[in-house]
Amino acid sequence: MYEPKPEHRFTFGLWTVGNVGRDPFGDAVRERLDPVYVVHKLAELGAYGVNLHDEDLIPRGTPPQERDQIVRRFKKALDETGLKVPMVTANLFSDPAFKDGAFTSPDPWVRAYALRKSLETMDLGAELGAEIYVVWPGREGAEVEATGKARKVWDWVREALNFMAAYAEDQGYGYRFALEPKPNEPRGDIYFATVGSMLAFIHTLDRPERFGLNPEFAHETMAGLNFVHAVAQALDAGKLFHIDLNDQRMSRFDQDLRFGSENLKAAFFLVDLLESSGYQGPRHFDAHALRTEDEEGVWAFARGCMRTYLILKERAEAFREDPEVKELLAAYYQEDPAALALLGPYSREKAEALKRAELPLEAKRRRGYALERLDQLAVEYLLGVRG
Amino acid sequence: MYEPKPEHRFTFGLWTVGNVGRDPFGDAVRERLDPVYVVHKLAELGAYGVNLHDEDLIPRGTPPQERDQIVRRFKKALDETGLKVPMVTANLFSDPAFKDGAFTSPDPWVRAYALRKSLETMDLGAELGAEIYVVWPGREGAEVEATGKARKVWDWVREALNFMAAYAEDQGYGYRFALEPKPNEPRGDIYFATVGSMLAFIHTLDRPERFGLNPEFAHETMAGLNFVHAVAQALDAGKLFHIDLNDQRMSRFDQDLRFGSENLKAAFFLVDLLESSGYQGPRHFDAHALRTEDEEGVWAFARGCMRTYLILKERAEAFREDPEVKELLAAYYQEDPAALALLGPYSREKAEALKRAELPLEAKRRRGYALERLDQLAVEYLLGVRG
Amino acid sequence: MYEPKPEHRFTFGLWTVGNVGRDPFGDAVRERLDPVYVVHKLAELGAYGVNLHDEDLIPRGTPPQERDQIVRRFKKALDETGLKVPMVTANLFSDPAFKDGAFTSPDPWVRAYALRKSLETMDLGAELGAEIYVVWPGREGAEVEATGKARKVWDWVREALNFMAAYAEDQGYGYRFALEPKPNEPRGDIYFATVGSMLAFIHTLDRPERFGLNPEFAHETMAGLNFVHAVAQALDAGKLFHIDLNDQRMSRFDQDLRFGSENLKAAFFLVDLLESSGYQGPRHFDAHALRTEDEEGVWAFARGCMRTYLILKERAEAFREDPEVKELLAAYYQEDPAALALLGPYSREKAEALKRAELPLEAKRRRGYALERLDQLAVEYLLGVRG
Amino acid sequence: MYEPKPEHRFTFGLWTVGNVGRDPFGDAVRERLDPVYVVHKLAELGAYGVNLHDEDLIPRGTPPQERDQIVRRFKKALDETGLKVPMVTANLFSDPAFKDGAFTSPDPWVRAYALRKSLETMDLGAELGAEIYVVWPGREGAEVEATGKARKVWDWVREALNFMAAYAEDQGYGYRFALEPKPNEPRGDIYFATVGSMLAFIHTLDRPERFGLNPEFAHETMAGLNFVHAVAQALDAGKLFHIDLNDQRMSRFDQDLRFGSENLKAAFFLVDLLESSGYQGPRHFDAHALRTEDEEGVWAFARGCMRTYLILKERAEAFREDPEVKELLAAYYQEDPAALALLGPYSREKAEALKRAELPLEAKRRRGYALERLDQLAVEYLLGVRG
Repeated sequence: MYEPKPEHRFTFGLWTVGNVGRDPFGDAVRERLDPVYVVHKLAELGAYGVNLHDEDLIPRGTPPQERDQIVRRFKKALDETGLKVPMVTANLFSDPAFKDGAFTSPDPWVRAYALRKSLETMDLGAELGAEIYVVWPGREGAEVEATGKARKVWDWVREALNFMAAYAEDQGYGYRFALEPKPNEPRGDIYFATVGSMLAFIHTLDRPERFGLNPEFAHETMAGLNFVHAVAQALDAGKLFHIDLNDQRMSRFDQDLRFGSENLKAAFFLVDLLESSGYQGPRHFDAHALRTEDEEGVWAFARGCMRTYLILKERAEAFREDPEVKELLAAYYQEDPAALALLGPYSREKAEALKRAELPLEAKRRRGYALERLDQLAVEYLLGVRG
Repeated sequence: MYEPKPEHRFTFGLWTVGNVGRDPFGDAVRERLDPVYVVHKLAELGAYGVNLHDEDLIPRGTPPQERDQIVRRFKKALDETGLKVPMVTANLFSDPAFKDGAFTSPDPWVRAYALRKSLETMDLGAELGAEIYVVWPGREGAEVEATGKARKVWDWVREALNFMAAYAEDQGYGYRFALEPKPNEPRGDIYFATVGSMLAFIHTLDRPERFGLNPEFAHETMAGLNFVHAVAQALDAGKLFHIDLNDQRMSRFDQDLRFGSENLKAAFFLVDLLESSGYQGPRHFDAHALRTEDEEGVWAFARGCMRTYLILKERAEAFREDPEVKELLAAYYQEDPAALALLGPYSREKAEALKRAELPLEAKRRRGYALERLDQLAVEYLLGVRG
Repeated sequence: MYEPKPEHRFTFGLWTVGNVGRDPFGDAVRERLDPVYVVHKLAELGAYGVNLHDEDLIPRGTPPQERDQIVRRFKKALDETGLKVPMVTANLFSDPAFKDGAFTSPDPWVRAYALRKSLETMDLGAELGAEIYVVWPGREGAEVEATGKARKVWDWVREALNFMAAYAEDQGYGYRFALEPKPNEPRGDIYFATVGSMLAFIHTLDRPERFGLNPEFAHETMAGLNFVHAVAQALDAGKLFHIDLNDQRMSRFDQDLRFGSENLKAAFFLVDLLESSGYQGPRHFDAHALRTEDEEGVWAFARGCMRTYLILKERAEAFREDPEVKELLAAYYQEDPAALALLGPYSREKAEALKRAELPLEAKRRRGYALERLDQLAVEYLLGVRG
Repeated sequence: MYEPKPEHRFTFGLWTVGNVGRDPFGDAVRERLDPVYVVHKLAELGAYGVNLHDEDLIPRGTPPQERDQIVRRFKKALDETGLKVPMVTANLFSDPAFKDGAFTSPDPWVRAYALRKSLETMDLGAELGAEIYVVWPGREGAEVEATGKARKVWDWVREALNFMAAYAEDQGYGYRFALEPKPNEPRGDIYFATVGSMLAFIHTLDRPERFGLNPEFAHETMAGLNFVHAVAQALDAGKLFHIDLNDQRMSRFDQDLRFGSENLKAAFFLVDLLESSGYQGPRHFDAHALRTEDEEGVWAFARGCMRTYLILKERAEAFREDPEVKELLAAYYQEDPAALALLGPYSREKAEALKRAELPLEAKRRRGYALERLDQLAVEYLLGVRG
């Protein structure tokens, strides 16, 4: 029970379980883990896949021969364990060259470097069988508006994404590109701050069908936004390509906490939404163990993410099956055909009928929606006192 | 100097200067002002126009005859003063019938009521010469996710907006619809939380060209987002149809403070962006006097909004003309043609050239961008010690 | 099971279950409830007491005779039901006279009015048997710093609180004064913003022993602060006199949501702290039903608050009794006597020993604290999959 | 004009101008600067002093002999330049040993290490002539409440601070201890989150007179609190011992931006408060250059901090001297002696008079406070269009 299996499509990044626990005020507390070791451990824990940045596997500046050796050894571990690499992404943030942006650097040499790194990461991902390519524009932001760069960045990023999609097509790579918004950190403000901002931007690209979202729980939460609503809008637009699960206290530095460790109720409704939406992609945990932990704590963290997900999945399903819940929802959504007849696609007749109709407004002003009861039932399913 | 004139296109809402100063913990402190009186006062102060919700002019439940009388009297004041009504909007939030949403009420009678009110407001606006119709989905949100409504609301709102645009077309109304996002308040979370969310939603409508944005300074700021970036994205998409200027402390209830009264630097860069963008629409102050004020304070507030805007406009222009600023920006954006040759539209040759190119990375890692100096110059223009 | 009883000391305010559902953008949705009716309903639901502002029971401007009649009728309801009035407080925020502060109004007539209202509320509370007097300085704030009032308010509030404590003593009232901080709303910033600010202020009063705290879950959470830590500091100082339980999304307008409806994990650790601390005071729910609700929803809300508290209490107790939890905590806190000998009260010898001691730092740098596992266990108790 | 001089008492930390520009997602972009070089540069720029953590000057693990050499060389630079070291503090956050707290580590060996480091830093500071010792409890926090540590930490920190104060006395060190609160980062929540929390805690120490505050602009702002109010409360309590000036966007990771670069209006009123309060201590800039900058940018940053302070000082003084401002404030604070007679220290007669008094409430409900005008004048002084 609550035992993770590959069919649950849980994935972790090399950088997540491999996080060394450095923070702005403190030095690393854990050793870097060998990627091959990580693959074996994740397989053991029941994960489906492992994701990576180029530099997670191949340190910056590795000579080509050594690179190929690293890749071969890593692929061997994948073969032995059956673990997949569903997603890759380029690290466009660690190198000091990116300090004022990668795709949005004012310096075209830096933009070229970012683009080249992206192409090379697409090549690497293709070798590893990755189908999703994530773009996280973490350095594409600013602390200073005086440059007027906010007027230029859209063109620069558009150019880069269009180039990447054309390259993928030309190479016969089947990538779906998943864009990952974040409001701030490491930059004062990041240009693509929210799920909405990214969704809107896709419509300005040459091949919008290739692009979708990689929303992250912590990132929307940092802006105090409702992550369930953001994911619902991405689903409505057919653009949920990948998802980053973790947790976060609102209005705070990026924490990447264990999934379900802070906002349990939001996590419950997120799982409820994901599992009922037909979403088939990875459930990626973009989080890491607390800095207080040694390696044992890292695996406790990884197990906790998956186990909590499975508990919430079971609870959400039970909640939806509860007869009282069903009854409350039936009453909540009960629709009077006479009212429905006034709605729907426009016609002049309908508009006129609508203007003349007798609307039972007094009754609607007095109507109670029974949401305190419904919400309490959800809480009780979450707490496991019912169902 | 700094004297507002109609050509500056400053507008106020009847509900802004007419705000009675009620808050969640306190009773009204000012009397409702007669709309005709407001028109005369605003004209006197140099405003270009006055905007309104249906109920600001015509109280809910007014009989048709009385309505027409009110409209005639109001139009007479407009004629006498030359003031315009550039924008109208329906109040879909005050009536208790809207307590669980207007377009997103689970009750189709309420949705019908919201739609009817919208059509009637379009009729009223047409009578008054309005060209912009604002939609603020203030009640379209939730405190309780258990209903699963987050999956349904997109369809409902789409249906309503499509109906409204078709009605406008059918009636020969030239409205451009300006959608106004807000993250929360009065609902726990509002579905259309950010500029990005609204921009993305427009692409799912039948007549996207009719729809644009009405971003509000305070609303993005409530989510801790950078308003200048949001407006820049709307401009990039050709979707800045209207703008709500005011001010706000971050991470706090909706304050609607006097423009430029809190985040002076953000206001400076906003005016810099607006004035250099070719935006021709109204500069609408969606704010109100503090609750500590009597009527005299209301007009001091209105004068302050316009005066601060004009001061910032002058400062931004001077900043852009400063030789040191120009020099710093020239250095900031200096582009090496050899690098530019690696960028731009995709070709296989370019991709290959990019992979082989020698990139001067060490130099880029050491490069300083002189942003502390540039930003300090901006601050000094703002403070008026330079220029 | 989970059935509230008077011994649990649950209380509600007249203003909470009686909330009419008005918000800054919408009119009232529920009728005012007769206080006598509220008393009977709360008793029926298992509450211990009902709290009130002066104006909740006696509308502003009620003539003395009528006032006495109201009080008699209310006391009769208390007698019939056994419900207590543990706490009273003066409404120093609704009256427009308080628009720029009550105790911190620049106008001494307003300060006098606030003080008189406070004395009269103390008289009323004494008649009703109240033992706790809450002071919520909701209007004691500012939007405008230019007055320099931030330098004066401490004296004014000190003067008022000293007066009130002296009056209580003179009248033989046994009140303990519980001060309630809040960061903002209805004012832009409230001077006594946090639990810490209030705790510190008490030390500047004439009779500090009479004064303590009434911390509120939602208020600390509005500032993104950890409420459990704030309550722990108040307990450390012996100053937890009363507590306001509710819920709130961070960084948002004051929501006063049903207890346990948002931050379940924080609520869990709060109940854990309260129940193990020896705190004997009321568990006061300072919250109200959602605006979507009719009267039935109000009582569902009230039942939900108490039921969730009792569930969390049971879970916290089980968590503390779990053998694995005990073992993890024993390891977490295991103290080496050799280390302890270097700590404690100062002596010159100890300081010298400390400077010379061999500290096993490498081992401590490698130590893991097993907090991911411990926290996961807490989550599992909360979710009811364990215990 | 606006030229910094030692008499302005501006100070910087070695760690501020020496910041290497590492962040959670990116590697260092600048080289470490030699402390002796920093001393000479700061003197050249007009600073009064330089502050330091033990490890800023003496890297962890430096052998004693080398330590003494470093100190001698550093003191020589101080002598040559006249620069002071007004404040020292121990780095209790970088070493992995402190990952779960320094004074609040569950491991007494770590607590002993933190205490020893503090004593050694006091010794070092005494050698350098420091008079203020700052305690920043950056690691004294938690992400996990399940340990119940929130009940224990107050005793542990009390013990440590009492030990340190006793040691100072025993050694004849004249230190005043300045405690520096912060809400979060690097820990999920820090126990001493706000100025209020620290002020309150001081009252529980053995030698409260030795302890005061080191409030930081960015830290209160991270919690969305009003820094001017916090400093005003510290001044009211006689506890402003030191101050950290910088800037910060609200509700965001710790940014340590150039003073006056974000919240200009708050900076204006802070300087107004500090300069009129009689505060004689250092004006310490606890900030650093943006990561986009090279060394030239670092000195531009340092110059900007001081210059903006001096501009704001001039503006605040002019604002206070403006006749219209004086007139508005005289009206704002005008006090009717008849009202004042009802206030002040308690007497039974006064309480009775107060209850019987005729209060001119209707007039007070209608009174306008002219704060929109006053605030606009402040904005205009800030913008330099007046005065």
